[in-house]
Amino acid sequence: MTLLSILATIFGSGMALSNFPQALKIFKRKSARDISLLTYVLLFLGSVTWVLYGIEIKSYPLIIANSFGTIGVVLVVIGWSFYRK
Amino acid sequence: MTLLSILATIFGSGMALSNFPQALKIFKRKSARDISLLTYVLLFLGSVTWVLYGIEIKSYPLIIANSFGTIGVVLVVIGWSFYRK
Repeated sequence: MTLLSILATIFGSGMALSNFPQALKIFKRKSARDISLLTYVLLFLGSVTWVLYGIEIKSYPLIIANSFGTIGVVLVVIGWSFYRK
Repeated sequence: MTLLSILATIFGSGMALSNFPQALKIFKRKSARDISLLTYVLLFLGSVTWVLYGIEIKSYPLIIANSFGTIGVVLVVIGWSFYRK
């Protein structure tokens, strides 16, 4: 593990965790009418692609950060499917 | 170049380019009072770290996508420094 890979894991995970407060808010308010599904579908495709690419090139920072990202995005989409109206 | 590295470049660049409309809006309106500098400082640190990590592990998708990200974020910060009040 190099310093850069540790920093990339920390900053990347931090960015990825930004989806969790959004998911939490949906489940707390039981409402997701203001959520753009397209945004989260695009974020999902992006995160999953980075995870698979990370596995391909054996990059733990990419795998870790984007796994958090994928989970957060999936939680938002689940919330959306429950509370879209 | 594998299929996954091409997809990662496309989706990663797409996500990174999302900062350009924000920068454009600041320069068009000549106003950045609603912009959170902390958000863009964090995004800057994240993008730069991914670029450096990408150089370290010789990953072109990481370098390309996060270079776009860094440029977009820097444009937003420049706009902020001009038009914050």
